[in-house]
Amino acid sequence: MFELSRRALLAGTAALAGAGAAGLPLRPAGAATPAAGRQVPSAYRYKVGDVEITAIADGMRTFPLPSGFVRNQTPEAVKAALKAAFLSDTQVSMPFTVLLLNVGGRLVLVDTGNGGEPGVVGQLRGTLGTLGIAPEAIDQVVISHFHADHINGLLLPDGTPAFPKAQVMVPEPEWAFWMDEGQMSRAPDAMKPSFQNVRRVFKPFEGKLERYAWDKEVAPGLTAVGTPGHTPGHTSFALESNFEEMFIQSDLTSIAALFVPNPSWQVQFDMDGPKAAETRKATLDRIAADRTRIAGYHFPFPAVAHLDKAGDGFRYVPVLWNPAML
Amino acid sequence: MFELSRRALLAGTAALAGAGAAGLPLRPAGAATPAAGRQVPSAYRYKVGDVEITAIADGMRTFPLPSGFVRNQTPEAVKAALKAAFLSDTQVSMPFTVLLLNVGGRLVLVDTGNGGEPGVVGQLRGTLGTLGIAPEAIDQVVISHFHADHINGLLLPDGTPAFPKAQVMVPEPEWAFWMDEGQMSRAPDAMKPSFQNVRRVFKPFEGKLERYAWDKEVAPGLTAVGTPGHTPGHTSFALESNFEEMFIQSDLTSIAALFVPNPSWQVQFDMDGPKAAETRKATLDRIAADRTRIAGYHFPFPAVAHLDKAGDGFRYVPVLWNPAML
Repeated sequence: MFELSRRALLAGTAALAGAGAAGLPLRPAGAATPAAGRQVPSAYRYKVGDVEITAIADGMRTFPLPSGFVRNQTPEAVKAALKAAFLSDTQVSMPFTVLLLNVGGRLVLVDTGNGGEPGVVGQLRGTLGTLGIAPEAIDQVVISHFHADHINGLLLPDGTPAFPKAQVMVPEPEWAFWMDEGQMSRAPDAMKPSFQNVRRVFKPFEGKLERYAWDKEVAPGLTAVGTPGHTPGHTSFALESNFEEMFIQSDLTSIAALFVPNPSWQVQFDMDGPKAAETRKATLDRIAADRTRIAGYHFPFPAVAHLDKAGDGFRYVPVLWNPAML
Repeated sequence: MFELSRRALLAGTAALAGAGAAGLPLRPAGAATPAAGRQVPSAYRYKVGDVEITAIADGMRTFPLPSGFVRNQTPEAVKAALKAAFLSDTQVSMPFTVLLLNVGGRLVLVDTGNGGEPGVVGQLRGTLGTLGIAPEAIDQVVISHFHADHINGLLLPDGTPAFPKAQVMVPEPEWAFWMDEGQMSRAPDAMKPSFQNVRRVFKPFEGKLERYAWDKEVAPGLTAVGTPGHTPGHTSFALESNFEEMFIQSDLTSIAALFVPNPSWQVQFDMDGPKAAETRKATLDRIAADRTRIAGYHFPFPAVAHLDKAGDGFRYVPVLWNPAML
């Protein structure tokens, strides 16, 4: 593993480095240093009790604001909320943050990112490499739901498993919905590719997947919590370790700037909008009342925060970044 | 420089890596992976016009809340503000973020961190190494004011210059105050070590320092802005490039959770509390009205935000982390 990790680290170097590591000759004093032109790999570590968590950005997609992005709001209200967050009101930027948990020496990945060749998304594997973590070191992958940005990273671009030694675990109700041939045949045409993608992604794991039930521990201290609406089997996770806790909300709340202050707003990706909103409000009310830390897949990197009750919604308070990991 | 950077990168490896890069043998499937136990180097890149900025955490100090931490407030009010920010109300955590600017190929460091051996602070040089940036590549260091957490990183632990090829620039009014023997002799005993530290740090640069005046460009597009009060010569910077701008506020506002919502509060480090508060309020009012991006040395990493007017103070809105640096 040392050789492999060393290679991975040197590969990671290209992403990390500016002129120096690109192998340029000694720069004469006063000569120009080219701009790095690329982001550093985005990773952040913190602890929940004895569990060490590494938040790893898979990237961020930016796209023109779709007219129906929030189903039950006017475009004007959506633009006003974006502007209040000092974001573009003509585009949406959606980050993706995967969590790697070290639970008693077991490496557990919660969701897998967008997969594919690395670019604005698909950065998970490269950043794992930079961190010195080989794909073979991942013991377990726990999937929250079957949208492509959560499951596609299970496979390499060539279609083979990206984490070859990992036990892959999926929510039973999510599996039941997406793998049902009747559901697929009754689905609107626009949704059929999603059903087909689920079949494509899980095919290499046939007979090897573990389907987990809600309210069960999927790893020590990590309990699956049913939070349906976004998808029929959408799952969050309650993490508890040594008297500390964190709620991993998956896609219960989409982009923080829009849906944390306005939990009744329904993003177009919520398959059952009203149910998603109901689940979201009830869950976030409890999180805020208990002052529980919350991680969100589409929250701004490093995607961990507290929520405070504010009006009809919540105020997003990012956890203070600790550069020293005390 | 390649060899040097490569060494630096491999040294950075220790900070970045988990088990793999520590040179452990191949981990058998299912064997425990030790926790990394350390933070990843904290760096974040963004652009202001054509200027590429790398925010680099020098670290964070956490200390028991001093009874007089906010001079003109009761401890109860301070504790309430900390609690509202989901922070400990018995401790203060103060982050330090240095900015590295690539201005047309010229590497400009704004402040230098705490120096010393790397630990909870003093991380700047190690992280520069991880990024592939040799100390010799820094062309210029611009100092905002002479508090130890901004200037001590000018020297290595052995007392020699940490950035040997850099032109060091200091604010003229700050120099005039701290180097004045009369000011030192009249200062309270508790402040005398600060005067002595200034003399110690700048001694190796004798005859080589450049003293800059307020309202002058210290680098292309980077203009010194006098914001006195925190110290007599405390300086902020207005950065403008290709029709974009950012205000680098240095220590105009201390810990964001306390002083952004309450700009009239005076931190114990403000040498002239009322003047600091007056400067802060006037400056932040303008920043908020203009919706200007603002970087702050003690803001939460990556220390860049927008401010929105809220009541008698401001709401802190962190800039959305972009993992892809579009």
